[in-house]
Amino acid sequence: MMIDIPEALVSVADVIRSHERFVVIAHFRPDGDAIGSTIALGHALQAMGKQVRMLNEDPVPERYAFLQGSDEIGRTPRGPVDAEVVISVDNGAWKRLGDRSVVSLANAPLVVNIDHHGSNECFGAVNCVLPDEAATGCILYKLIRLLEVPITPVIANALYAAISTDTGSFQYEKTTPEVMRMAGDLLSKGVNVMEMNRMLYQEVSWKSLMVTREVLNGMVLEEDGRLCWFSLDLETKGRLNASPDDVADLVDSIRVIRGVKVAAIFEEMEPGVIRVSMRSKDARVNVAKIAEEFHGGGHALAAGIRIRRPLAEARECVLQAIRVACRKALG
Amino acid sequence: MMIDIPEALVSVADVIRSHERFVVIAHFRPDGDAIGSTIALGHALQAMGKQVRMLNEDPVPERYAFLQGSDEIGRTPRGPVDAEVVISVDNGAWKRLGDRSVVSLANAPLVVNIDHHGSNECFGAVNCVLPDEAATGCILYKLIRLLEVPITPVIANALYAAISTDTGSFQYEKTTPEVMRMAGDLLSKGVNVMEMNRMLYQEVSWKSLMVTREVLNGMVLEEDGRLCWFSLDLETKGRLNASPDDVADLVDSIRVIRGVKVAAIFEEMEPGVIRVSMRSKDARVNVAKIAEEFHGGGHALAAGIRIRRPLAEARECVLQAIRVACRKALG
Ligand SMILES: [Mn+2]
Ligand SMILES: [Mn+2]
Repeated sequence: MMIDIPEALVSVADVIRSHERFVVIAHFRPDGDAIGSTIALGHALQAMGKQVRMLNEDPVPERYAFLQGSDEIGRTPRGPVDAEVVISVDNGAWKRLGDRSVVSLANAPLVVNIDHHGSNECFGAVNCVLPDEAATGCILYKLIRLLEVPITPVIANALYAAISTDTGSFQYEKTTPEVMRMAGDLLSKGVNVMEMNRMLYQEVSWKSLMVTREVLNGMVLEEDGRLCWFSLDLETKGRLNASPDDVADLVDSIRVIRGVKVAAIFEEMEPGVIRVSMRSKDARVNVAKIAEEFHGGGHALAAGIRIRRPLAEARECVLQAIRVACRKALG
Repeated sequence: MMIDIPEALVSVADVIRSHERFVVIAHFRPDGDAIGSTIALGHALQAMGKQVRMLNEDPVPERYAFLQGSDEIGRTPRGPVDAEVVISVDNGAWKRLGDRSVVSLANAPLVVNIDHHGSNECFGAVNCVLPDEAATGCILYKLIRLLEVPITPVIANALYAAISTDTGSFQYEKTTPEVMRMAGDLLSKGVNVMEMNRMLYQEVSWKSLMVTREVLNGMVLEEDGRLCWFSLDLETKGRLNASPDDVADLVDSIRVIRGVKVAAIFEEMEPGVIRVSMRSKDARVNVAKIAEEFHGGGHALAAGIRIRRPLAEARECVLQAIRVACRKALG
């Protein structure tokens, strides 16, 4: 398969070839791209005969524990970690390695930063930041090809998981023809596509279903079905034992309703502190403008606010602003 | 892009080149592959200067009405339809064109059958049935390449929709490296990947969310979380105004629960007639064996039963058989 090797990867390959002892680490609260990238790069380095420690601030999330190699990712220990090179993957800022990891890795002689976040702070001595790439897994696919390391089934599965999860199963904007070809090549190198996708997407935790149920029972549709909202108070979060991850994407579960133009979630973070997440599906309704009225921010189609007021009050004044914007824009 | 052209397609291409007036039609209650295939082939024939009527027994489902060209698919009229060649796409049996279509097309001089269902009855004078293909859209991609018709944006979008929906967004078993390459090529020919996938997967009807809510509120987890079931009576179906399509895949919504080994749906079809759908996620629990006890059938991991008994009774005796099987197989 023909691929373009980005220039920035050549320096990364040089560093790898000329050193022996590596740490590979991704951002804290790791997602599929973070875990898959750690495993893939870790195994590629091992295949080159390097010494590698794969670390993360947090444990591997249960949903990615099925990936072969995930059990080799240890939690960053307290106290300095010895390595010649720390390679940070899928991580936009040094501090996002996590508090403990930042301390433990503070004396790393050389930091390499491989990432696809546009906001990346280029904290490495060598930085390979490619915001057009759909996943860090895509960058590592190219790096591993450049290093001429054979793509073993473990590496193929890890890279596929990284790319699939970061593209929402090949649906998001950065899913280019090249992404499809790379994923296809990985399928030919030992990924069982059915089993992999069953593990990635067909194993939902009971708790997350209970959160979904709460949303479906409590959501309110108004303005002729153009506005849908849901509010989540502390008592309910406690009852559901919901972690920040469990409720992070709630707004998506109501955004998808056909006909809805604006979706909003009101989440009580602590007593009297409300986080509002808004999504617009219609360019004529700019939710960033609404957020600005309440000192929040974001983009035209995705914006957020933090308000110090009781939940019902905060909700009512933001909803009123949304209603006005909807009627003005949509008639 | 290199592709293998299946032998059976060469005869189809010959028929197309040597005739002028075509009907393109897919199975009744059309899915994404049926609609996308009809549009893609219809437009390819038009590009060759042929006369084409695109027909279907049923209207284009609302969720596929966004596809350009879908408004050219008419409902099969009563009375004979005149054409030299009827090309059936994504359709395993002549009768599955629908009652009216079967009558209207009864006098077709030549029937061509292009499909990927293993159960296809080869009802055409020319049959191109390729069960290894992930979608009829994949076969048509190859046919259109063979015919040397340029892939316009309309054709690219239709084929992408066909392939994506029939593979569950590139997740099912038949998603080969070739499928990924074909989809990638379509992305380069005028598919807006973000917008397309938003329309395909991010626009859920209120009714289907209400059905999901009913399931989440009514499902029962037992046997230490290994068995999950839900029963749907006629009264509830009526209240939800649920069509057969709305409840067709309900068992999937509980099958996905982490830890569940067997999922079962009990659906009251008419008073005292119960349809049971069972899914196993563990090869040690063979649901076809359980189905056989009640004169049903299926495969080890997916089986069904139809029982003439009141809902509660039917449910209890099948559940008991499942419980016994679970305990025996899993301890
Ligand atoms: Mn990423
Ligand atoms: Mn099909």
